[in-house]
Amino acid sequence: MNNPKIPHKELVADWHALMRTFIRPEDVAAKATLLKYMEQILFGLHDFLNTHVGITEEISLKDLSEHYKDTLISENPEEKLADIIANIIEKTAPNAVNVASPFFVGHMTSAIPFFMVHLKTITTALNQNVVKLETSKILSIIEKQVLAKIHRIIFRESEDFYLEHVQNSRTSLGCFTENGTIANLTALWIARNTQLCPKVGFEGVDQEGIFAAYKAYDIEKSVILVSELGHFSLKKAGGLLGIGNKNIISIIVDSDNRIDIIKLKEKIHEIKKSGLKTKILAIVGIAGTTETGTIDPLRQLGEICSENNIHFHVDAAWGGPVLLSEKYKHLLDGIELADSVTIDGHKQFYMPMSSGMVYFKDPCLMDSISYHANYVNRRGSVDLGIKALSGSREANSLVLDSALKIMGSKGYALLIEHGIETAKSFADEINERPDFELITPPWLNILTYRIFPEELRTQWDDSEDVQRKINEKLNEINIMIQRFQREAGNSFVSRTTLKAYKGRCENIVVLRCVIMNPMTNMNILREILDEQENIYKNNIHI
Amino acid sequence: MNNPKIPHKELVADWHALMRTFIRPEDVAAKATLLKYMEQILFGLHDFLNTHVGITEEISLKDLSEHYKDTLISENPEEKLADIIANIIEKTAPNAVNVASPFFVGHMTSAIPFFMVHLKTITTALNQNVVKLETSKILSIIEKQVLAKIHRIIFRESEDFYLEHVQNSRTSLGCFTENGTIANLTALWIARNTQLCPKVGFEGVDQEGIFAAYKAYDIEKSVILVSELGHFSLKKAGGLLGIGNKNIISIIVDSDNRIDIIKLKEKIHEIKKSGLKTKILAIVGIAGTTETGTIDPLRQLGEICSENNIHFHVDAAWGGPVLLSEKYKHLLDGIELADSVTIDGHKQFYMPMSSGMVYFKDPCLMDSISYHANYVNRRGSVDLGIKALSGSREANSLVLDSALKIMGSKGYALLIEHGIETAKSFADEINERPDFELITPPWLNILTYRIFPEELRTQWDDSEDVQRKINEKLNEINIMIQRFQREAGNSFVSRTTLKAYKGRCENIVVLRCVIMNPMTNMNILREILDEQENIYKNNIHI
Repeated sequence: MNNPKIPHKELVADWHALMRTFIRPEDVAAKATLLKYMEQILFGLHDFLNTHVGITEEISLKDLSEHYKDTLISENPEEKLADIIANIIEKTAPNAVNVASPFFVGHMTSAIPFFMVHLKTITTALNQNVVKLETSKILSIIEKQVLAKIHRIIFRESEDFYLEHVQNSRTSLGCFTENGTIANLTALWIARNTQLCPKVGFEGVDQEGIFAAYKAYDIEKSVILVSELGHFSLKKAGGLLGIGNKNIISIIVDSDNRIDIIKLKEKIHEIKKSGLKTKILAIVGIAGTTETGTIDPLRQLGEICSENNIHFHVDAAWGGPVLLSEKYKHLLDGIELADSVTIDGHKQFYMPMSSGMVYFKDPCLMDSISYHANYVNRRGSVDLGIKALSGSREANSLVLDSALKIMGSKGYALLIEHGIETAKSFADEINERPDFELITPPWLNILTYRIFPEELRTQWDDSEDVQRKINEKLNEINIMIQRFQREAGNSFVSRTTLKAYKGRCENIVVLRCVIMNPMTNMNILREILDEQENIYKNNIHI
Repeated sequence: MNNPKIPHKELVADWHALMRTFIRPEDVAAKATLLKYMEQILFGLHDFLNTHVGITEEISLKDLSEHYKDTLISENPEEKLADIIANIIEKTAPNAVNVASPFFVGHMTSAIPFFMVHLKTITTALNQNVVKLETSKILSIIEKQVLAKIHRIIFRESEDFYLEHVQNSRTSLGCFTENGTIANLTALWIARNTQLCPKVGFEGVDQEGIFAAYKAYDIEKSVILVSELGHFSLKKAGGLLGIGNKNIISIIVDSDNRIDIIKLKEKIHEIKKSGLKTKILAIVGIAGTTETGTIDPLRQLGEICSENNIHFHVDAAWGGPVLLSEKYKHLLDGIELADSVTIDGHKQFYMPMSSGMVYFKDPCLMDSISYHANYVNRRGSVDLGIKALSGSREANSLVLDSALKIMGSKGYALLIEHGIETAKSFADEINERPDFELITPPWLNILTYRIFPEELRTQWDDSEDVQRKINEKLNEINIMIQRFQREAGNSFVSRTTLKAYKGRCENIVVLRCVIMNPMTNMNILREILDEQENIYKNNIHI
C-alpha cells in the first residue's frame, strides 16, 4: 500500500537524473508504462475510472490510515517515476472515491467530460501564473474575456458595456477563485469595504480596520442576512472579516425552503428601528442551496436591498449555470439585480477541482480590494493579481473558455435539463413507493427523502409525542441505511439533517441526492431505492 | 486568433454528442490529433514549451486583446475538441509566456519537471474533493501524511509526536492552500483568533467580531509587525481580517535587508509602554523575501515572540524547501520556533500552479477556525474541510507526495543548491563587470543589480545633489533596459524598486533575478548581461 521504506539501491539523486526529470522519461520502457496509463486516462476516462477507482472491498479508514504513517522523506528516490504512477493507479486509485460513477449521487462532485482532463493537462504544462501579466500574457486576456462572457449571461448588460469593459485594464467584471468559499468571501469582503467606505476623517475599513470603522460610522455591530440554508462559508467569512460569525444572521425558510421574505423584512425593520447601532452590510440570496437545491426569491431580495441600500450578493455556486438553459433560466429571475454573484466552475460547469468565480455588476466594485507590490502589479498595470483575494494562481479560464466552445451553451443546457428532469422523475418514483417519503421536492436537480416504512407509517397519529418518537426512530433508520449503502460501495447518497418539517419536529435526517451525472438515469435511481429497501428489510432491526 | 463567431454548420449540441464528451473522443482522426499533442506535452515537455510557447514576435497587449473582445457564448459548439486543442497549441500558446525557458529568470515561476504534468493529470482525472472524506477517502489520508512529512522537516518533533498526529482526526499539522497568500491569511487568521480567544463573557473574535473583541480585551487596535520587505499578502490579510492594513506595521531592514532587530524591539517597547491600548497579534519573519531573497534572523524573532507571548509566523513561501538541503538548511535556523509557517508548493517544490501550504507547530491551533455543516463535515469526522479557509479543493497532496518519492530530499537539495551557487557566481560576474552594480547579493538564489555605466560612475561624487541626479538617471536607464529586453523576447529579468541604498537615496530601481531553473547556467546569465549591455549601448541615449 505504502511504498517500501528502503529505497531501491540503484536509485540515487544525481544531477544527471535530475535534469532528465525536467525534460523527458528516462528510457523507452518507462515511457511505455507511462504512455499506457496516460492513454487510458486521456482517451478512456470513463472506463478507466470505473475499472480502477473505488472498486476494492471496503477497507476501514482506520486500517487504511495505518499504512500511511511514515513521516520521513527519504534521501534518495524511493521509486522510479513509472513505478510511482503505476502505484497510484493500481494501489491508490482503488481507495479513492469513484465520484464519476452514475451511482454516486450524494454530492456536488461528479463525472467530468474527458476533455476537461486534456485542458487541465495543457494548462498545467503551460504553468502560467495569472497573478501578473509577465507570467501569463494571453491567459490574462482570456480570463478577462471569459469573465465577460459569464457576466453577460448573469447581468445581461449591453453590447457597448461589454465592449468597454471586456479588456479594460482599469475595470474588473469578476475574478476566478479557488472555489465558492473564496468567491463568497471575496464578495462579502467587497460588500464590507463599500458599506464602510472611506469618508472625511476615515480612510476606509480595509485601511483602518473594523474598530475604527464602527467608530467612524457610529455603529457597534454589522450583520449579514441569509436564509438558514446558507452555505457554511458565509459564517466563515463573517469570522474572517472581523464581523463575527454570529452576526451572519439566519432567517428561517418558508415551506418551500426559500428565505421567508416576511421574516426578513421584520428583521430589517427591527435592526433599523431598535437603535442597536447595527449596519446591514449585505443580504445573501441563494440560487441552489447546498442541502435542498432551492432558490431564494431573488427579485424580491434585490428590491429589498435596493430600497435599503444594502449589498445584494447571490450565492449561485450551484445554480449559476442554469442560466444557460433557456428552459429553466427563469428560475433565477432577479439575479441580474445582484451586486455580486458566486458561481463554481467545478460544479455545474463540470470543470475539474478547484475552480470558482465571483462576478460584480459594477466593474469598479473590485477597486475596494486593490493591493500592489513593487516587484509586480505596478499601479495601472493590467495584472489580475491587483484585485483578487488570492495571489499566484493557475489559468483556469483556459479550461472554461475552451469548454464553452466545445459544448456550446446548449450542451450545458442539456446537462442542466437532464439533471432537473431526472430529479423530477425520481421524486415521482419516491412518491409512488410506500416505504419512502419525499421531503424536499427538486427545484433544480437536488432532492431529499427518507425511508418511512409502512409499519411505522401506520403507527403515526396526531399525538406530538408519538410523532416525535417515530421521527427519532426514522432518523436512526435513515442514518443506518445511508451508512450501510455507502459501505457496501455500490452506490452513494449523502445524508443531512433538516431543521423543520411541516412543523412536526425539530431535526429530520434525510437522504440527499444530487443528479448531475448525465449517465445517471431512472434505472440507476430505482436500483438505489431498491438497495435501500433491501438494506432496510435485511439489515435493520427496529 | 479568436475562434470564428459563426459555428461550424455541422456542429450541434445534442445528447448523443454530449455523452461522448464524457466518455471518449468522437473518432479515430480526433484521437490521433489529440494523441499527437498529448504525447508532445507529456513526453517532451521541455521541447514542447520551447517550440510552442512565447515564440512569436512581440505583439502588443493592446493589439492582442483586440482579438478577445467577443463576449457571446455560442449556442452550438464552436469547434470540435481536436480543433480547440490544436488552436490552443498553435495560436494561444505562442502568446503565453515561456516561464520554463532558462532565460526566464525574472520571477518565481519557472520550469517544472515533466512528471509534475503527469501527476496533475491523474489528480484531475480522479477529481477528488478533499473538503470531505466521502469525496476523497485515501487522498485525505495522503494529505495528512505529506503534511506530516513537511512538518517534520520544519519543526523536527519526535517520532512519537508524528505517530500520534500523522493520521489523527482530531488534530491538524497544517493544510494545503491555493497559494502563499491564502496560507499567510490562514496563519494570521489563526493568530488573531488565538490572541483574541474566548474568555469569560466573550465567545472569541471569530464568533463576536473585532469590535466586541477589542472591548473584551480593552484595546483599540491590534497590529502585526513585519519587515518592510514583507509580501503584500500580509497587508491584504490585515485588511481582510478587520485589523486594518495600516496596522500591518513595517519595520525597516538593516544593510543586509533583514528586519532590524533593534528597531523591532523599540517598536514593541513603544507599543507596550505608550498605553495605546494596542495588542501585537503576530510578528512575521520572512525566509526568502520576494524582492531580495533574504532571510530574517528567525531565531531572534522566535525568542522575542516567546518572551512577549506573540504569535510567530514565518513566511517561508519561497525559502521553505531550503530545509531539504543539508548544506544550506542552517540559513533557516530558528524556523522551528515558529507557531506557523507558509511554504509554497509551486515555488521551490516545483509543483504546478496553484499550490500552497501552511503548517502549525501546535496540532490544536487550527481548532480556532473550525466550521461545520450538516450535510458534510459532521463534528468529529476526519473531513479536512472542517479546518481550512477554503472549501472544495483538489488533491494536490498527491502531486507533492509523489514528487518527494521521485526526487528524494537530495534531488530537491540539488535544485536548491544549484540555485544558490549559480546566484553566487552570477553575483561575482556582476561585480567583475564595470558597467554593472550588484545591489543585493544573494542569500538564497535571488539577487538584484543594476546597470551603472562607467560614464555615469565617473561623475559620481560626495555631493548629495549629484548622487540624487545620477540615481534618477540610473533609474530611468534601468527601467528602459528591462522593458527593452522583455519586449525583445529572448530573456526576462524583472525589476523592482528598493527603498534605501547605502543611505544615499530613496528609491532605486533594480533588475531582479531568480535562479530556480536548473537549466539556467552561467553561460546563459552572461548572455543576459551581454544583452543588457548591448541594449544600453545601442538603444539608450542619455
